[in-house]
Order: sequence, then C-alpha cells, then structure tokens
Amino acid sequence: MTNSEKALKMHEEWHGKIETCAKSHVNSREDLAIAYTPGVAEPCKVIARDPEAAYTYTMKSNTVAVVSDGSAVLGLGNIGALAAMPVMEGKAVLFKEFGGVNAVPICLDTQDTEEIIKSVVNIAPAFGGINLEDISAPRCFEIEERLKELLDIPVFHDDQHGTAIVVLAGIINAMKVTGKDKESAKVVVNGAGSAGVAITKLLLTYGFKDVTMCDISGILGKGSQNLNWMQQKMVEVTNLEQKTGTLADALKGADIFVGVSAPNIVTQDMVASMNKDAILFAMANPVPEIMPDIAKAAGAKVVGTGRSDFPNQVNNVVAFPGIFKGALEGRATAITEEMKLATAKAIAGLVPDEELNENNILPEAFDPRVADVVSRAVKELI
Amino acid sequence: MTNSEKALKMHEEWHGKIETCAKSHVNSREDLAIAYTPGVAEPCKVIARDPEAAYTYTMKSNTVAVVSDGSAVLGLGNIGALAAMPVMEGKAVLFKEFGGVNAVPICLDTQDTEEIIKSVVNIAPAFGGINLEDISAPRCFEIEERLKELLDIPVFHDDQHGTAIVVLAGIINAMKVTGKDKESAKVVVNGAGSAGVAITKLLLTYGFKDVTMCDISGILGKGSQNLNWMQQKMVEVTNLEQKTGTLADALKGADIFVGVSAPNIVTQDMVASMNKDAILFAMANPVPEIMPDIAKAAGAKVVGTGRSDFPNQVNNVVAFPGIFKGALEGRATAITEEMKLATAKAIAGLVPDEELNENNILPEAFDPRVADVVSRAVKELI
Repeated sequence: MTNSEKALKMHEEWHGKIETCAKSHVNSREDLAIAYTPGVAEPCKVIARDPEAAYTYTMKSNTVAVVSDGSAVLGLGNIGALAAMPVMEGKAVLFKEFGGVNAVPICLDTQDTEEIIKSVVNIAPAFGGINLEDISAPRCFEIEERLKELLDIPVFHDDQHGTAIVVLAGIINAMKVTGKDKESAKVVVNGAGSAGVAITKLLLTYGFKDVTMCDISGILGKGSQNLNWMQQKMVEVTNLEQKTGTLADALKGADIFVGVSAPNIVTQDMVASMNKDAILFAMANPVPEIMPDIAKAAGAKVVGTGRSDFPNQVNNVVAFPGIFKGALEGRATAITEEMKLATAKAIAGLVPDEELNENNILPEAFDPRVADVVSRAVKELI
Repeated sequence: MTNSEKALKMHEEWHGKIETCAKSHVNSREDLAIAYTPGVAEPCKVIARDPEAAYTYTMKSNTVAVVSDGSAVLGLGNIGALAAMPVMEGKAVLFKEFGGVNAVPICLDTQDTEEIIKSVVNIAPAFGGINLEDISAPRCFEIEERLKELLDIPVFHDDQHGTAIVVLAGIINAMKVTGKDKESAKVVVNGAGSAGVAITKLLLTYGFKDVTMCDISGILGKGSQNLNWMQQKMVEVTNLEQKTGTLADALKGADIFVGVSAPNIVTQDMVASMNKDAILFAMANPVPEIMPDIAKAAGAKVVGTGRSDFPNQVNNVVAFPGIFKGALEGRATAITEEMKLATAKAIAGLVPDEELNENNILPEAFDPRVADVVSRAVKELI
C-alpha cells in the first residue's frame, strides 16, 4: 500500500481525527445537577460578573481555534473550507499531541476578508487563542493584524510566524556551525507570500542587516511592478542596495538562502556563486528548491528542508504547540515579537554546542523537551 | 458544601468540561506523514472533488456545534456569550455522554440576527449539525428558519423542539393514564416564548384541536396587543373560540396545562376549575408553576415538572442526543416535523403499558435504551 492509500484508509477508519471528550462524566442525577442544570448556573453567574473567571471555569483556558478559509492549503492551493478539514483536524491533533492544547478546527465557508474577521471575532468567546492557518496572502496579513486589534486573546498565523521562528532557530545554529554573523551575512529569501514575508521580518527583528526578497519575477525592489501592500512595505526595509535582476543575481555573494517557493529552482551554479560555507533552507514541499546532496556538492555547508527524510528538517511542530501552551498557561493577550525571538532562541538552544554540526542544527519534532522549553520561553515574557 | 459551592469547585477542577482528544495518535514520523503532511493531502483532494466525502474522512460525520448568543440562558436571562459557556459546555457533555455525539460549544459574541446567521453559515463546514441553544424569542425563530434554508445540515433549536418533543411524549402517556384524547382535550399552554410556541405547534401537528396560549398578559387572541410576528401567527391557529381573559379564565374546563413560564402562578382554585383528571406539566425551573403535591390535592391526576426530585421529569436529555445521533448516522439534511412526532412517540413507547401510571409517564434520563430508540425513530424517516 502506498502512503497515499494508507492515508486514505486511515482517515476513513478515524472518521474524523479528533473528537470531543467529556472531562465531567455524567452517570447520575447528582452529576447532572453539578455539570448541568441547576449547578451550572453558579459558574455562569460568576463569569457574568467577572469575565476573567471564564479562564477558571471553562475550556477557554486551554483551547484554541484552528481557523482557515481553505484558500492556501499546503501544496494544494485554494481547495475551500470543506476540503481543508483534514489538514485543520491534523493541526488540531498536533496541538493536543505535542502541546497538550485543545484545538477545534473552524473551516470558514467564506473567503471575504471582512466576513472572516467578523466570524472569528464572533466565535472568540469559547477560545483562549486563534491559530490562523492556510489563508492566502496578502489577505492573511490584514486578517491577522485586524484580529489582533479586535481581540484580547493571542492571534497567530502559523504559516507566517511558526515557519519564521523555526527558520530563525535553524539559522542561529547554522551560523554557529559556519562562523557567519547577522551583522554581515547577506540573506536572500525567495518567495514573497505569507511565510517569506514573516521570515524576512523576523530576520530583520533579530538583527540581520542585509536581506533581499525575491519572487517569481526576480528581486523585489522599490521599482518592482505588481507588489501587494505588504510587499510594498517590505521593499522599504529590504534590498538596501536596490539591486535588480533574477534570483541568480541575488544569490551572487549571498551567505544564506531561504526558499519558500517552488521545486528545483536553485541550480548548482547559483549555489557555487554564493559565499563560502553557504547556508540553504530549501523548504518547497515535497520537492525542495534544490536537493541537499546537490547543494552540498556545489559547496553549500548547511542545508535544511521541510522533509523528514533529510537532516535539518524545518518543522513548525517544534514551535506552535509550545507557543500556545505557554501563551494559554501564562494568559498572554498576544504573541509578541519578543516571544517569537525568544522561542527561536529556545529551539536553537535545544541542540547543545557539542552536538551541533552541519547535519544537526534543529531539535527533532519528537524531542519530548521541545514544548516545555518553548512554552517556558513564552511565559517568561508575559 | 451546598450544591452551588460544589458546582463551582468542580468547574474549577475541570477547567473546562470538554476537551478535544486525538483519535489519530502521532508517535512517529510515519504517523505524522499519515495524519498530517504529506498524507493528509489525499483525503483533501478527494473532498475537493466530492464534498460528500467529508462525511467519510472528517469529524463532520459525527460532530455538532452547540451555538448560543447567551441571550436567554436557562433561568439566568441575557448573560452574554462568555457567561453562557458553562451551559454550552454542559450541553456538549450531554451530547457525548448520552448520544456518543461530538459537540463543540460556539458562544457568539453578537446578538444581531444577521450576524448570528452569517457566522453560523460560515462555520458550518466542520459540523454535521447545528444545535441552537438559549437564544431569545422571537429572534430564535427567524434564526432557525433562515439557517434551515441556508444550510444542508440539520438545524435544531433544542429549547423549542427538544422541550416540545418530551412534553408531547409525556402528554401521550398521560392521556393513556387518564383516558383523555387529542380530539376533544382542551389544552392551555402558558408562556409564549420559544418553548411555548414550539410545544403548541407540535401539539397541533400531533392532532390536538383545542389549544390556547397564554402569557403574562393573559389569553393570546387576535385582539391581543404587542404580539411578536410568531405570536401573531400562533393566534391564527389557536384559541379557536377567541376567548379573552386571564390564565384562570383559560383553565376553566381545560384538560391539560403546560407551563413554561414562572413559579407559583397556578393556584389550587385554578386546578380545581379544570376538567376531571387534569394533566399538568409545570416546567418553570427550579420552582414550578405549581408544586406537584399541591396540584394533586386540588384534583390533578398527572403532574410533570422539570425537576428530578419529583416523578415525571420533563428532561430534554431524553431527546436531543438521540435525535442528532440518528440524524448524523442517517445523514439527514433536516429534522422534520415527522421526525419530531416519531421521536415523541418513541420516547412515550419506552414506558410499557403495564408500567404506566400517573407517576411514571416518561423514561428516566439515564435509561440506557433511550438514545438508541430515539435515533432509530429518526433514522427510519430519513
């Protein structure tokens, strides 16, 4: 049986990858009178007086909504809300399995920005956090920004920030391996959608000085055509020399390549044109921008991908479960830039210097320490 | 410790009465590749081609949303979405414990009819059914009607129809005990909100000819002031003699009283003015319209209440879990009038003739047969 066949068969058996389970079992009239009427009136009355008490008496304390409109589902594109359900259920499973966080898939049957925002605001009372997922750029930027303003619970678009955090963690360790530093390293980010923008922003916040973004039309600069409003903001703070040209032009003399773009678009010649001990994160899925062995043969020192069958997998699962676990436990009202940086450093710190090498820059997804270490890093900043 | 204190303490311990549990555990890279990327793409692709496949591959097949705006929470009134959470979580617990149905509390932070409708339509893809709960009349009528038109999954306002079904079940058996019949029995329903309207409608559908509604202003008729649009519809089909006057006037010569109103508003004189072997369902909570012993002393033959400490408890929990279990298993697109009647008869049928008496007209909430019997009654009509 192929993996695809097995996935279909298992999804049919599961008939839904998550279920709701009662923590308060109801086996007697007394149970009913405590968990439901009339006893349930007591916590209701307390919450009506003091909304904060919802965190004591309800699932809000440890539950997030995994919200998508199905417009940009991993590798599948705009397949809509219903078809996105298996992915959102999978995400909900990962929240619970890796972070102990309850998560409910909410797949919205609209791709209208205003309706998405309104619907999420309306359903927010039940939830302690909102994890946005697989919403296409540039709508995802506006939706996240507006929801952050409107809600007093953390809102986090994982495709942006989860990816950015793990990439930064990998880059921190890759720079230790190669002796590069953020002040002088030249970085090229290829792909100017949600992940590319968020990675670029976080690298700048971390202290990189020279980051250049590219997309399918080449280098992004102030003269580029057809930039969306977020890309227009990004060209103000990237590509300081205002280079023009192709990805190949951008990579000449670069130290770090981060790809969230398309398969096989980086050639050996491009890698060879980069600085010595180049670092490449080639995260197109399932086929990366360049295969690790090919990149290494052309002179790359450290190569990470999105795949689990190569070293240095960039996997968001080391970030989002712990981030929300910490945010919920600490009652954060937002996931701040400082928390993202601290999370990236904490993830990087899980690989001790003596174990660090070009094939071991990131902790394993199944490293049991990850969620606790990440959640502690978040909580310390609340 | 009082019951109220115990309820608070337990709610604090539970920290949310429901949680999400993974049916697909993720303990290895292979598990991850099947439940999440890349394997998860397969069921997504199948659903994108054939939306029906969502019932095979996702939680939609066995999950309902418990939706409230917190505007009419049992006995507490308009306490808002957040304070309604303990009730909606409790309801979700009952769905799972009594019917094996997964249920997610969705407390909406809006009381605007249009926004509620839009939000529910938008979140519908994840769910196989919508259970509306504790939404004030008359908005609840419009919200339910519009959602039924807009959605292809069952929408059911339990305060209306769950209550109506169990009351009808009780009346069917009470009429057997008293020898009354639906053709000639005079019925008075006191309370003209969501439950009173739905009870009246279902009694008429079942075949009662003479039903009169009352509210705090007395008998509802075509000349009544300040009726909402639904009450205006109801006076067209009730109170055929166009009586006017008070509840006391309505009860003279009546056979059946159904109260979904206020404590202690029915006197012994009123009961004594009713026909012989009067049937009373006095369901104001926690204090009924008249206490059972007082009603019986005045000549009532059968008395039901909402309370578990008296005989003949009218408890929706014998209806809604089985109704949604049946509707989901049978892939019903709506809960029809026929299903409501069949459910009431099935619930009544759980008390065999030889066990039937004035103190035993309804099955126990904890009768393990109930959900299966009810779900079968629903499925036979799909």
